[in-house]
Amino acid sequence: MSLLVVGSIALDSVKTPFGTADDVLGGSATYFSTAASYFTDVKLVAVVGDDFPDKHVQFLKSRRIDVSGLQKSSGRTFRWKGEYGYDLNEAKTLDTQLNVFESFRPNIPDAYRTSDVVFLANIDPVLQREVLHQIDRPKLVACDTMNFWIGGKKDELVKTLAEVDILLINEAEARELAGEPNLVKAARAVQAMGPATLIVKRGEYGSVMFNSGGIFSAPAYPLEAVFDPTGAGDSFAGGFMGYLDNVQNFDEASLRQAIIFGSVMASFNVEDFSLNGMKSLDYKEIEGRYREFRKITFFEDIA
Amino acid sequence: MSLLVVGSIALDSVKTPFGTADDVLGGSATYFSTAASYFTDVKLVAVVGDDFPDKHVQFLKSRRIDVSGLQKSSGRTFRWKGEYGYDLNEAKTLDTQLNVFESFRPNIPDAYRTSDVVFLANIDPVLQREVLHQIDRPKLVACDTMNFWIGGKKDELVKTLAEVDILLINEAEARELAGEPNLVKAARAVQAMGPATLIVKRGEYGSVMFNSGGIFSAPAYPLEAVFDPTGAGDSFAGGFMGYLDNVQNFDEASLRQAIIFGSVMASFNVEDFSLNGMKSLDYKEIEGRYREFRKITFFEDIA
Repeated sequence: MSLLVVGSIALDSVKTPFGTADDVLGGSATYFSTAASYFTDVKLVAVVGDDFPDKHVQFLKSRRIDVSGLQKSSGRTFRWKGEYGYDLNEAKTLDTQLNVFESFRPNIPDAYRTSDVVFLANIDPVLQREVLHQIDRPKLVACDTMNFWIGGKKDELVKTLAEVDILLINEAEARELAGEPNLVKAARAVQAMGPATLIVKRGEYGSVMFNSGGIFSAPAYPLEAVFDPTGAGDSFAGGFMGYLDNVQNFDEASLRQAIIFGSVMASFNVEDFSLNGMKSLDYKEIEGRYREFRKITFFEDIA
Repeated sequence: MSLLVVGSIALDSVKTPFGTADDVLGGSATYFSTAASYFTDVKLVAVVGDDFPDKHVQFLKSRRIDVSGLQKSSGRTFRWKGEYGYDLNEAKTLDTQLNVFESFRPNIPDAYRTSDVVFLANIDPVLQREVLHQIDRPKLVACDTMNFWIGGKKDELVKTLAEVDILLINEAEARELAGEPNLVKAARAVQAMGPATLIVKRGEYGSVMFNSGGIFSAPAYPLEAVFDPTGAGDSFAGGFMGYLDNVQNFDEASLRQAIIFGSVMASFNVEDFSLNGMKSLDYKEIEGRYREFRKITFFEDIA
């Protein structure tokens, strides 16, 4: 088993109604690989600038994440600044500085080319395809994307989608990509573009999966204190893909369990700034929250 | 078993992206009692004007709903006019004419006073209490309310809540009532006002129940064609309370099953204008959709 992720590493400055954090570790690849590291061995491909604090690299290594694919470019690390109101569902972006991320060309180390499971986090769909073509026949490929690419590079995105098994996106993005307000119909349109499985992320409303096994709907874990939602979607993807790589089984039952593990990791992540909520979990805590999901959703059959 | 509902009967004019309907049968008590009529005997208390078409009364009777508590006043029936965009979650009210509903004083017929289960649909909280005090020790009392009363008659509403077992409201209203953006905390604040059980209705995101049994989260039925969401919440309440009155058991397992039956009835209702989606269902269809909910939410435990 081996899970490859390509995505961003960022230094985030975040303001929520509950506090602020400046220049803290963030980025899709970071959240993803930290969440996945509880389930499997993760190989990371990303770029940072020469200002990137070594302590963050040491943190990733401490989670047994393979950072031999971490490129260091001269210049500043990607920076994102955002703010959340009491409605924690949507971030208001205050500033984005792509910096070294702007000219990122993912270079897949030889040792990574045999990865079984691949996650293409939200980057240019052309780069997503370039990465994919450097891997020897992966067993499972999933990707994320965002409205920026749906609006600006739809044709390239559609080409990428033709080569992936699973697409994970936000609800509004699923509707936008399909050009269809009804989610069930939108899902069918997206599946026709390539991905056999579509997972729609709905923030505090959980997620819903569409595939040939039907529809699976999972709630989010009901938290009393959502502190910072940054990285929730990537933590979800990390738990989801990490579990699948661990069990090396992609049947309907495993996909559903993986969704719950994804929801569990997202729930830990939003309880604190940056990676703090997932930094040092005991696997027993993860299993405990999985079982909470069972309790929250259980109801008896009718006679 | 006997279920009493007090609420509104209206003639609605509705516009959705999929069509329009003028002066069609609507109102909280109508949706509630029609949904509940598939599970139990319903006694209805409401008021209509002398313009109310007799065919609607005949329809209610055809569902074996007891209409001896239906008051006829001189004047026009309550009218509501609303519009939905592609985001079907929220109606835009274009016109409200209370008409005879404005001076409605619910009068509970003697034969209704022994009702086991009582639902106080969204009316003035003072009237909700007046109704309650006319019933001999009901086993279970639930009520609905709306932002209009939360904002305008909070003190009266709080007095009513002290006397009810279950409150069913929309998510934004739960937050407003509690003055707390986090739903888990808001639920605790609402429970402290009286209702041991809070059920939060989330439209296409389903519902969540908070009580001493913990938290139960249920999705909405994923529909390809939501035609008209009017009455979804009242149909949900009707299925929920109708099932509980039928089984005469209000334990956690029954409450959870009742939530699913409520979700089933709401899903049928939104598939057509007015009451058309629930007019003539076969109970087997209701059971079939209940079992669909089992499939949609099922995932296996971990070893």
